[in-house]
Amino acid sequence: MTSTPPARAFVDRHVGPRGDDVARMLEVVGAPSLEALVDAAVPAAIRSDRPLDLPAARGEAEVADALRAIAGRNRVVTSMIGLGYHGTTTPPVIRRNVLESPGWYTSYTPYQPEISQGRLEVLLTFQTMVADLTALPVAGASLLDEATAVTEAVLLMRRAVKGREDGVVVVDAQCLPRTLEVVRGRADAVGLPLVVADLTDGLPADLPDVVGVVLAQPGASGVVRDLRPLVDAAHDRGALVTVTADLLSLTLLMPPGELGADVAVGSAQRFGVPMFYGGPHAAFIAVRQGLERTLPGRLVGVSHDADGATAFRLALQTREQHIRREKATSNICTAQALLAVVAAAYAAYHGPDGLREIAERVHARAVALASGLRDLGVAVVHEAFFDTVLAHVPGAADAVVAAALARGINLRHVDADHVGITTDETTTPAHIAQVLASFTQVVHGGGESAQLEHGGATVLQLREGGIPAGLRRTSEFLTHEVFHRYRSETAMMRWLRRLADKDLALDRTMIPLGSCTMKLNAAVEMEPISWPEFADVHPLAPADQAAGYAELIAQLEAWLAEITGYAAVSLQPNAGSQGELAGLLAIRGYHRSRGDDARTLCLIPASAHGTNAASAVLAGMRVVVVKTAADGTIDLAHLRELLAEHGPQVAAIMLTYPSTHGVYEAEVREVTAAVHDAGGQVYIDGANLNALVGLARPAELGGDVSHLNLHKTFCIPHGGGGPGVGPVAVAEHVAPFLPGRGGTAVAQAPHGSAGILPISWAYVALMGPDGLRSATEHAVLAANYVAARLTEHFPVLYTGPGGRVAHECILDLRALTAATGVTAEDVAKRLIDYGFHAPTLSFPVAGTLMVEPTESEDLAELDRFCDAMVAIRGEIQRVADGEWTAADSPLRGAPHTAACVSADVWEAAYSRELAAYPLPSLRHDKYWPPVRRIDNAAGDRTLVCACPPIEEYA
Amino acid sequence: MTSTPPARAFVDRHVGPRGDDVARMLEVVGAPSLEALVDAAVPAAIRSDRPLDLPAARGEAEVADALRAIAGRNRVVTSMIGLGYHGTTTPPVIRRNVLESPGWYTSYTPYQPEISQGRLEVLLTFQTMVADLTALPVAGASLLDEATAVTEAVLLMRRAVKGREDGVVVVDAQCLPRTLEVVRGRADAVGLPLVVADLTDGLPADLPDVVGVVLAQPGASGVVRDLRPLVDAAHDRGALVTVTADLLSLTLLMPPGELGADVAVGSAQRFGVPMFYGGPHAAFIAVRQGLERTLPGRLVGVSHDADGATAFRLALQTREQHIRREKATSNICTAQALLAVVAAAYAAYHGPDGLREIAERVHARAVALASGLRDLGVAVVHEAFFDTVLAHVPGAADAVVAAALARGINLRHVDADHVGITTDETTTPAHIAQVLASFTQVVHGGGESAQLEHGGATVLQLREGGIPAGLRRTSEFLTHEVFHRYRSETAMMRWLRRLADKDLALDRTMIPLGSCTMKLNAAVEMEPISWPEFADVHPLAPADQAAGYAELIAQLEAWLAEITGYAAVSLQPNAGSQGELAGLLAIRGYHRSRGDDARTLCLIPASAHGTNAASAVLAGMRVVVVKTAADGTIDLAHLRELLAEHGPQVAAIMLTYPSTHGVYEAEVREVTAAVHDAGGQVYIDGANLNALVGLARPAELGGDVSHLNLHKTFCIPHGGGGPGVGPVAVAEHVAPFLPGRGGTAVAQAPHGSAGILPISWAYVALMGPDGLRSATEHAVLAANYVAARLTEHFPVLYTGPGGRVAHECILDLRALTAATGVTAEDVAKRLIDYGFHAPTLSFPVAGTLMVEPTESEDLAELDRFCDAMVAIRGEIQRVADGEWTAADSPLRGAPHTAACVSADVWEAAYSRELAAYPLPSLRHDKYWPPVRRIDNAAGDRTLVCACPPIEEYA
Repeated sequence: MTSTPPARAFVDRHVGPRGDDVARMLEVVGAPSLEALVDAAVPAAIRSDRPLDLPAARGEAEVADALRAIAGRNRVVTSMIGLGYHGTTTPPVIRRNVLESPGWYTSYTPYQPEISQGRLEVLLTFQTMVADLTALPVAGASLLDEATAVTEAVLLMRRAVKGREDGVVVVDAQCLPRTLEVVRGRADAVGLPLVVADLTDGLPADLPDVVGVVLAQPGASGVVRDLRPLVDAAHDRGALVTVTADLLSLTLLMPPGELGADVAVGSAQRFGVPMFYGGPHAAFIAVRQGLERTLPGRLVGVSHDADGATAFRLALQTREQHIRREKATSNICTAQALLAVVAAAYAAYHGPDGLREIAERVHARAVALASGLRDLGVAVVHEAFFDTVLAHVPGAADAVVAAALARGINLRHVDADHVGITTDETTTPAHIAQVLASFTQVVHGGGESAQLEHGGATVLQLREGGIPAGLRRTSEFLTHEVFHRYRSETAMMRWLRRLADKDLALDRTMIPLGSCTMKLNAAVEMEPISWPEFADVHPLAPADQAAGYAELIAQLEAWLAEITGYAAVSLQPNAGSQGELAGLLAIRGYHRSRGDDARTLCLIPASAHGTNAASAVLAGMRVVVVKTAADGTIDLAHLRELLAEHGPQVAAIMLTYPSTHGVYEAEVREVTAAVHDAGGQVYIDGANLNALVGLARPAELGGDVSHLNLHKTFCIPHGGGGPGVGPVAVAEHVAPFLPGRGGTAVAQAPHGSAGILPISWAYVALMGPDGLRSATEHAVLAANYVAARLTEHFPVLYTGPGGRVAHECILDLRALTAATGVTAEDVAKRLIDYGFHAPTLSFPVAGTLMVEPTESEDLAELDRFCDAMVAIRGEIQRVADGEWTAADSPLRGAPHTAACVSADVWEAAYSRELAAYPLPSLRHDKYWPPVRRIDNAAGDRTLVCACPPIEEYA
Repeated sequence: MTSTPPARAFVDRHVGPRGDDVARMLEVVGAPSLEALVDAAVPAAIRSDRPLDLPAARGEAEVADALRAIAGRNRVVTSMIGLGYHGTTTPPVIRRNVLESPGWYTSYTPYQPEISQGRLEVLLTFQTMVADLTALPVAGASLLDEATAVTEAVLLMRRAVKGREDGVVVVDAQCLPRTLEVVRGRADAVGLPLVVADLTDGLPADLPDVVGVVLAQPGASGVVRDLRPLVDAAHDRGALVTVTADLLSLTLLMPPGELGADVAVGSAQRFGVPMFYGGPHAAFIAVRQGLERTLPGRLVGVSHDADGATAFRLALQTREQHIRREKATSNICTAQALLAVVAAAYAAYHGPDGLREIAERVHARAVALASGLRDLGVAVVHEAFFDTVLAHVPGAADAVVAAALARGINLRHVDADHVGITTDETTTPAHIAQVLASFTQVVHGGGESAQLEHGGATVLQLREGGIPAGLRRTSEFLTHEVFHRYRSETAMMRWLRRLADKDLALDRTMIPLGSCTMKLNAAVEMEPISWPEFADVHPLAPADQAAGYAELIAQLEAWLAEITGYAAVSLQPNAGSQGELAGLLAIRGYHRSRGDDARTLCLIPASAHGTNAASAVLAGMRVVVVKTAADGTIDLAHLRELLAEHGPQVAAIMLTYPSTHGVYEAEVREVTAAVHDAGGQVYIDGANLNALVGLARPAELGGDVSHLNLHKTFCIPHGGGGPGVGPVAVAEHVAPFLPGRGGTAVAQAPHGSAGILPISWAYVALMGPDGLRSATEHAVLAANYVAARLTEHFPVLYTGPGGRVAHECILDLRALTAATGVTAEDVAKRLIDYGFHAPTLSFPVAGTLMVEPTESEDLAELDRFCDAMVAIRGEIQRVADGEWTAADSPLRGAPHTAACVSADVWEAAYSRELAAYPLPSLRHDKYWPPVRRIDNAAGDRTLVCACPPIEEYA
């Protein structure tokens, strides 16, 4: 019997300020009530008159029970389907101390490297691991999934081969079916000629200009081939070569780098990350020397701090979409940091010998299986394989798959005549025996048990391998000591703790990042993702095994549709950027379906996030920038000019609402109406949806398409830089063009990062319609409180009607910088000494800080932040007054390490105690950054993207 | 399908040193092989010739699967049985960030207060909570369970009433049945006259000299009475009064202090701690002013550090058993720290208003139930009650209980005519309706559904209460701000993190505590205790609901019997001290069963842990001390003298093997034979069993009884000072006298702290016989390695045959102290600056440090510790050389806070950098203690045992 009532409504746990606090905050803000404040801040014109039609709030125990019931409708079956998803054992020490540890999962993307050294170190370990295993020297800090990684590799190859923009990319038919689907759609969007071909007999001779070739090793059918002739042929034709690789197989197989590949991509899922019904998982990409500056996504590099100590930070950020905007070559802005951390820790825990042992075992099981099949008279299609055996059973595939399922094992139904069986780390001899028994039953009819006995006995013996001697790996890998030091659980636990302690995450402090919404990730929301019934389901398992997921996904889609006002939602995109892309591709599909092929322009306001423009380009659109007025609103006159000029070419406008300036713009409906009148579609970026939930709906503002960010508004944690989930929501007329409904697929898995959807489901269920609205209102209150407390110290740049901000506010440092030389960056770094992560720095306006306190911070924490900002303003004043120079001030000296303030020699113009403890409260709760300010330029000049030897730290 | 093979044997994860390390360590030790070392260290005379007959080692995934299967054989049913165990909702934020957080559960007892400020602060919060709720000013830091707490209160009352040692204690028949059983047995053991009486008509008039009265409020039958007349009557007769109380009820009921009670005891289980099939839970005890120095168990007090900052530490330790030995008044040495932390955090999370709200709801459900029963014509026995309704159903109790069970609810079968129903935090109106339907079905036969409808409707209404107005609580409680600041999940999460960060636990460093065995608590061992199937079972649920537990307990008992060589094991004792007591009571029972009533002497070596003597006294024995020779071994000649003198009075000898001096004594069999020859029994304290597992068995050395420490040898974490589990293992002839088999019950729950037994079960299953032996061998290797590396710097006090130590070694500081004034305590505190918890200080020999590295520390960590000790020896040398005085040395100045080394003023004779970073490696991994050395004497002089106001920290 379930349905335990809540002791106290969850909304009171999620929302920080309590009754008395709210009253005090309203007083400071100068509003008679929360309702009055919200009425003043949120223009009546945009308010929805229909309250959220969602189930009433449930208590924590009730929601946990409900999720247990849903989980119970999934069925955990041994999956030997393969196709990029494999059973793996997450070491419990890693599950508990990473996946279930707030110190890891609540941290933000490491844009502030001084407070991110722990996760940067592990991401560097991930890069080193990938570089070693692929034998290519430079690897990125992870991509979203294998399909996206292949797409990025295709785009990379095309742009790296200069001057041959019309060149063709050839893709191996042995790539995973879903990869082919995604890469085809993505290539089509940007007009890249792409040919999928069976390469058994070499590269197609009839293609005029091949700029890139993607090869799969092992192939989707399991085949392992000597790719060197193909690589050589491609290189001879001036093409670059990408190899998709299985990371585990690379401990035994000749790696891509040694095959001659220029690029390697793949998934790191089987390194300890649960299948999660498709995601999230970390994909990898590695390139040969010379291509590093073309890498998409994040790249961790080595530099040094102001005291010369080794320090890590994100390298070459000028490559990234938020800087390059419409000139960006990729729209990837989320990595899969948390999952990359798991994979890297898994590699460190097993080391090269342990990984090789696992791979040998996986391979031995496949060999035993192949051998057993041959003994049964079943033809095994490929002689050479790593973990996947393709069995030829004319007309009997259905029966074999059914027989195995009856024994609790999923096999892959390739076609009517072929069955694929993939072994993994969790495969036992008993599994092999059961698979053989399934074949026996079908192929030989009766006599099953005798065969089984026999099978059970033989499969335990190791037969001759399936890897041709010439393709065996002989080179060393994972030689760095990080892969040798943490082999006992005690050592691993302490390493993970030590790393987490270097970083500042939400479990220690407010992270007041504008537009990034670092709100509570409640434990009750997080717990279910560890349950085997959610974690251990293969995304291609038969539907009845995922009935719980189907229910959860359908409900969450419906709830998000109700919240946004749209007709349909797809949860497939596994990052906001992919949601944008999917949304724009849906708009493109809609126009094309009406024969409106000329509509390829995308209007984007100057204040938009750079990713908008990058996504538009990758959706095959041309970007036209709409001016923004001085107050941050869209310049309606300019918009009308552009519509008059380009009307019939306009595919869409992309708006962010409330705008990136943190203001509810009253005239948004005029904007959307104008675009609609011109025949364009309206894309409303849901980045700031948390300022609307329960008050307004993007669809009701005139939106046709929006993406949301579940990792922001709906409580999926940031994970230190990913995972993200970016559902795309659309109006009825665009619905047929959604991924999964006829539109272009944008992710490897049908439901994207399904494994973390229970988090958002739980959040909506816990909050209910009133709680969700209350969260929005308290977010607005908190932002206005911070603005009210700080505006006399730092002018608030934009305000909306009634002088109110929305859910965030921009503090303008420019005048102070001009007067004193103290920069916004100095303030950001000095905040570290006060125990805070910096607000968003210089976005959307250079020289400013954007603060979003969220609804989850209580008054004490808001005041702690405001007190810090006020104290910093006092420090700036001392520079202004000539007491210190900017260069020799605690602002420029920040952040200060414990080592620097306790050094025997102290030469600064300010005191040690002022450096360390500028406020008395810091004496009871002090975060010490592990490094001082990091030199970014030096790191980019000399790019080092693999773990430096331990001695370098000394 | 399960049975995933291990990638790598778990033993390689549990044991720290790897292959190459072992070779290097053997070289330093000077042994050709591990086998040779063990042969040299462990006398052949004590070695067992029979290897462990245990199941072979299983992998982590396999063991997790096996435990899931066992858990699946428990059935989670809504329990309304009451009797001290209640459904409760553990807030997920507390489960994740305390119960599942290594920072909390791997910490040791806070004997080193400078590295324990976080947990001391929460234990102080627990004390404040108990003091407030009971309205008695001084509360302890928790006891083992309610039955033990009542026993302790009875003993306390007797000794507090001076000069009336033969006075009677009267115990209310309304105490819980199990409490009566335990307190009767314990009183009998020490010859305390105890009368259990129905107090409905007042105190029995015929008792000559009443020194104490125990009253129950609410009573076991649910009744709530005005106890004031009874309290007054008791006081009039010169007796003290203890009230057993339900902590939650005290938010509504007049508290014990206001009723006039001198002592209050009870369980804090329902404050967020799962039922755990009986434990572990924190019990509480509080006393009025004037009795604080008679309190048993741990007590946290407030003092200040060397810089004058507020600091916490254990107060009045001279009361405790390890100091007072046979003069001790209690043998309690484990608290239930981790569970007290959960309960205190629960109270802080809900605050007084939240707790009152929960209590009102619980009460309202009971009122609704009583009302519904009356509507059905069922008599409700008590008009006044809090959460328990006693229904009178002549002859129908069986049928009602069965009907409820069929509806998924356990009720209490009181007798053939009475059924008890207890409501709790998780009780819903639907539960009440189901209970009423069960009665309806039995009482009225058919017509059930109509009644149900009716019942469902009425029970939602609040009827007039069951608490007489005069007994309503009117006083305030939990007014301290700690109960008001952490009400949002974000605030609670950060508080818990901040507190944990103040402390040094096993997740950051080796804790080289001699005899306390701080080895790995593996995540795979810990995970199952959170599963509802283990956490949410009532200890008095029908047996078939606990079939999984029965299986697990039977297997674990059998495994422990095999490991120790004994015939039978009881897992009931929930601490090592209770295991000792149970073992000694079993010996007493054995002698008595043979008419050997005169055997009441217990021989205890001078070197024994103080708890041995305290336990003997509480088992009704007189202690006679056996001398130990200079080398730490038992003085056999003295033993023979004592046996000659006292032979027929000797009940037992208590040995620790290997001895507390860290040596395997070869002549142990002579000792045991001599005692047996004199007709005595041999008790072998299993504190050091981890030095024997797989090599020798206590029973084979001549032991008749041993207790073990699952929280040491078998990986249950120390939890910051509890829980513990202290199974007692006995030879065949003593088996009938075990708790649960006819002997005296020593714990509230039949299987003690059942909820954490999966940890030890998993450990044995994971390690298998070879792994367990390997752990022992590596523990011996590690101790000998540390001894070999350090002996030239600090002489190792005792060694056994071949110059080897066992699993720990004693470093002798006495000569250095004499020469320099630097004490062992200075070294212990200086180790904090080096990032280590101190070894055991001045036990068993004053002026020494005892080091037990355990098998789980790898060579890098052992070297880090040895390097620190060598560096400290160098610092002592500088004092010896006259460079510093002892008083102005980094040793006496230790530990150094970040605040002190970064202060603007620095006047020490040594440098800041030397204070903070005496070794370069500390620059990359530095623990900063929150306070400097704490003044213990000051804290004991002015005893403050409740949370000081926040301003005091400033």
